Amino acid sequence: MKRKITLKHIARELDVSISTVSKALKNSEEIGQDTKEKIQAFAKLYNYRPNNIAISLKNKRTKNIGVIIPDIVHHFFTTVFRGIEQYANNKGYNVIVCVSDESFDKEVINMEMLANGSIDGFIMALAGETQLKNDFNHLKEVTEQGIPLVLFDRVTEDVQCDKVIINDEEAAYQAVKKLIASGRRKIALVTTEGYLNVSAKRAEGYFRALKEHHLPIDKDMILELPYQKDNEKKSEEFFRNRSIDAVLCVNEIFAVKCMGIVQRSGKRVPDDIAFIGFTDGILSRLSTPTLSSVDQHGELMGETAARMLIEKIERDHDQEEEEIFQTRIISATLVERESTLGSLK
Amino acid sequence: MKRKITLKHIARELDVSISTVSKALKNSEEIGQDTKEKIQAFAKLYNYRPNNIAISLKNKRTKNIGVIIPDIVHHFFTTVFRGIEQYANNKGYNVIVCVSDESFDKEVINMEMLANGSIDGFIMALAGETQLKNDFNHLKEVTEQGIPLVLFDRVTEDVQCDKVIINDEEAAYQAVKKLIASGRRKIALVTTEGYLNVSAKRAEGYFRALKEHHLPIDKDMILELPYQKDNEKKSEEFFRNRSIDAVLCVNEIFAVKCMGIVQRSGKRVPDDIAFIGFTDGILSRLSTPTLSSVDQHGELMGETAARMLIEKIERDHDQEEEEIFQTRIISATLVERESTLGSLK
Repeated sequence: MKRKITLKHIARELDVSISTVSKALKNSEEIGQDTKEKIQAFAKLYNYRPNNIAISLKNKRTKNIGVIIPDIVHHFFTTVFRGIEQYANNKGYNVIVCVSDESFDKEVINMEMLANGSIDGFIMALAGETQLKNDFNHLKEVTEQGIPLVLFDRVTEDVQCDKVIINDEEAAYQAVKKLIASGRRKIALVTTEGYLNVSAKRAEGYFRALKEHHLPIDKDMILELPYQKDNEKKSEEFFRNRSIDAVLCVNEIFAVKCMGIVQRSGKRVPDDIAFIGFTDGILSRLSTPTLSSVDQHGELMGETAARMLIEKIERDHDQEEEEIFQTRIISATLVERESTLGSLK
Repeated sequence: MKRKITLKHIARELDVSISTVSKALKNSEEIGQDTKEKIQAFAKLYNYRPNNIAISLKNKRTKNIGVIIPDIVHHFFTTVFRGIEQYANNKGYNVIVCVSDESFDKEVINMEMLANGSIDGFIMALAGETQLKNDFNHLKEVTEQGIPLVLFDRVTEDVQCDKVIINDEEAAYQAVKKLIASGRRKIALVTTEGYLNVSAKRAEGYFRALKEHHLPIDKDMILELPYQKDNEKKSEEFFRNRSIDAVLCVNEIFAVKCMGIVQRSGKRVPDDIAFIGFTDGILSRLSTPTLSSVDQHGELMGETAARMLIEKIERDHDQEEEEIFQTRIISATLVERESTLGSLK
């Protein structure tokens, strides 16, 4: 039996990146003519076809849903996953998860593998690297073949599909307004390096609240941390050298780490510095003091994504005239705990 | 095309449990003759064969590994997963995860789905319910078909396969010895309800250390908590009514929750009560005080499991004379932090 060739094989054989192969096969102008011809010739020689089993699958349901998430360490993604699972299981679907580890290549490899007949549709949050690269060919290929796709949380306007997002900008705006209302004026933002799509929205909300209250916007009050690595020294230096009375953090891990740094330096939370984080997980509930946090309703987001996907999967394709894509917005809510108690004197 | 029938379909059609179907098809004496005949007739009618695609797969590698874990909320399983992924990715394998949610049925459904041609081998930790039921037919079916299987952490002697475990008994013994050496004598154990396999081993180590130091073994000093649900009242009542100067907890979530309860009641950690948890995760590092914890080396466990599995997958079956199964033991180490600082006065 002839073995099916994938983007990954081509990339490995020709010693180029998966992204280059993907673009070359789409005849992208970003890739040099020589490389393009070499890749196209190789693909032709080995009879490459994108997810070629998938096409025959429309009438053969697997009753499996493929989920691709950037990591399984952040509480938020695991709660979304639970929401997906609960809804899907109730409807008789199994859920398969792959983790992209924020890597573009792994996202492409996982999608290609699952699209090969294992699943009826995808639910995904984009890898950080995919967002930075701005390359969504692998998603377009899947949707063009009629495999339903729902993006959640980390989405892109470049792909036509169903989406579930939260009102990140508004949630951050409300959180900062709350800090201002309690008398705080020197409000820092702790965010991810390179501002992932979601972090950028939260930063916008932070800016809007400051502007509205005629508070200065100062880039020096923004701490950018690497997404998954520790960077304790950078954080310590940031809090040591600035006069800060409140902090908005784009996730709860950053918030709990920064609360620890501030407390070890002898300051009190919330008396000297108030904290609000995003992702209302176990860390927020168990930290000392407990952390006020924006609840993104991950389970509801997962349930919504699963409902949208299964509706698409089970729809009668012969009946419909045109494809309609929806974007649902989940409202985040601020859960107030000890880290924002009281007003600044 | 005729649709392939699975255990799940049969169970649903005949309104019996998946476990009953599985046992009936194995002609188990536990199932009544009537039910057995009905199930066997139905299976025959619809041409049921266990994972019938898998058999043809020996010469057609998928380069995918299937991982089934009980949950993705506990830090331990996510670190094992990372270890599996890192090793497997380096060797050119993708990893697919399914979550059993501690449910026997979901474990069976997930295995059946993945064994159907999606993967070359399995890495698994058993669901709590599977351990309580003591029913491992679904594992035996997979190994009998020649699909390699590696069990980790939660294993069973009833299935012949490669295994990776940690020395849970010894690790708990050493942790309790450490507490005794610092002058603690009234040492409580916080464990899971119904003692999962792993918790039982930790309890044995706890008992051994107490016995060795001629301390009384008192069932009243053992708090059993449900595995995934909150049970704050039960914990509060436990600590309110007992004289305790140290606690061993079988996971870090229990430990951090109990430290919070004890501190809110006005006692100091570690001055009045010392704490040691299992699973050296982010909660242990970020709690106040920081938690001394048994590091189970999840990444190493995952890497070891992946290495054993891939060796089995890539072995030349024609060369070998007999199947050899190995059990590797990972040594846990105690990471000491603030919650065990100093000695009892």
